[in-house]
Amino acid sequence: MRVYDVSRPIHPEMFTYKDKEEKRPRFTVVRDFAADGSGARETRIDLDVHTGTHLDASLHMLPEGPAVHALAPERFFGIAYVADFADREGGIGAAVLRERLHALVAVPSAAPSSEQGEAWRAELRGTFVLLRTRSSLVERFLWDFPYLAADGAEFLAGLQVRGVGIDALGIERDQPGHPTHKILLSRGIAIYEGLNLAEVPEGVYAFFALPLSLVDVEASPVRAVLIDDPELVAYFSKRKGLSA
Amino acid sequence: MRVYDVSRPIHPEMFTYKDKEEKRPRFTVVRDFAADGSGARETRIDLDVHTGTHLDASLHMLPEGPAVHALAPERFFGIAYVADFADREGGIGAAVLRERLHALVAVPSAAPSSEQGEAWRAELRGTFVLLRTRSSLVERFLWDFPYLAADGAEFLAGLQVRGVGIDALGIERDQPGHPTHKILLSRGIAIYEGLNLAEVPEGVYAFFALPLSLVDVEASPVRAVLIDDPELVAYFSKRKGLSA
Repeated sequence: MRVYDVSRPIHPEMFTYKDKEEKRPRFTVVRDFAADGSGARETRIDLDVHTGTHLDASLHMLPEGPAVHALAPERFFGIAYVADFADREGGIGAAVLRERLHALVAVPSAAPSSEQGEAWRAELRGTFVLLRTRSSLVERFLWDFPYLAADGAEFLAGLQVRGVGIDALGIERDQPGHPTHKILLSRGIAIYEGLNLAEVPEGVYAFFALPLSLVDVEASPVRAVLIDDPELVAYFSKRKGLSA
Repeated sequence: MRVYDVSRPIHPEMFTYKDKEEKRPRFTVVRDFAADGSGARETRIDLDVHTGTHLDASLHMLPEGPAVHALAPERFFGIAYVADFADREGGIGAAVLRERLHALVAVPSAAPSSEQGEAWRAELRGTFVLLRTRSSLVERFLWDFPYLAADGAEFLAGLQVRGVGIDALGIERDQPGHPTHKILLSRGIAIYEGLNLAEVPEGVYAFFALPLSLVDVEASPVRAVLIDDPELVAYFSKRKGLSA
């Protein structure tokens, strides 16, 4: 069992979307130790809920969509496939996603060839698909970050995945009307942005990334982990339909 | 498999420690939808890291103690025992803890009676012990909240538990010098405060409650869940020593 912390540390000097200063977190110590070490420390944090590793709920892009507190916690853990696109630029579309996921997702060998397409779809249904791009390889905001193209979002939505994640601070870039967000969020598919997948090999993992229960808020910072353990993966594989 | 959300929702009107107004969270919408529903919503949250359901790291009470970001994520999940003290007042000490945990924790029946004490200790080592008190039964701050007494903290530290949780917003009350915090935190035992255990029966669960990776900060709000499933409990029971 190996645990990968795929969250980026949160601190006042961290990088932000489009390098905007006003998006940085602010920490304020509101109570501190006495000179002799007695007493206690107490801090307030002030942060944009889209800073660092975070979850977007539907309310981010859909005025009638649910906020983070309204979603059951079991939607935020389960099986995740990490797919590597570190050598790609621009939008990641349906064709390259299909190719990587066919290479990555094992179809039960018992399935006759005529049913392997359906068996492959069944393996992906209810899972998280996490895209590792060159954003994981740097400690700064990439202005030309690789992203999930609209037709890639349609492809994953068609597979009925539970969530989609990327290491960039955005899941799309320069797409008028934000189609990638809307395709996923309108079908209740969670979006994770700002993951750090630098150390994580392609493969299948157990994934835990629960948002804070922020009432009527459209997103939440998360601590996200991937656990590499075949026994735990087998456990969650049997329960993929839990919250689909 | 049943999932209990044991976190309290976070919102500007939530109750705080000693009902202090200045400890409440503040939410600010910094960007919002246009009248036609286009655009997106973006919020900043400003909160005391000890508000609602949260984890205290050692730096809360020990000037040289580690902050939340410095602790490996595998310290924050595993086996949890929920012990019920809803009919008790005041400090929960070693004697009543021993009694409840003996009633609750099954010793492998193969153990000869001379070794049952050690077998019982081995079952508890590396687990989380969560105290359900009458704080779970109300939606307000109890000024006379039941708490973990110093000798109860010594008892749990002696068992080498991984973490201790309580539903009150504090794990101790009116103890000069904060001995309960210091006994636990000086031994690297995580403290969870502000859990909501109202719906949770006594028993054994898988527990997940990871803090945000807040750099050099002494505590973090958490989304905490208990999973009631014998297979998952068996899985984590084999791995209790993981981060001990």
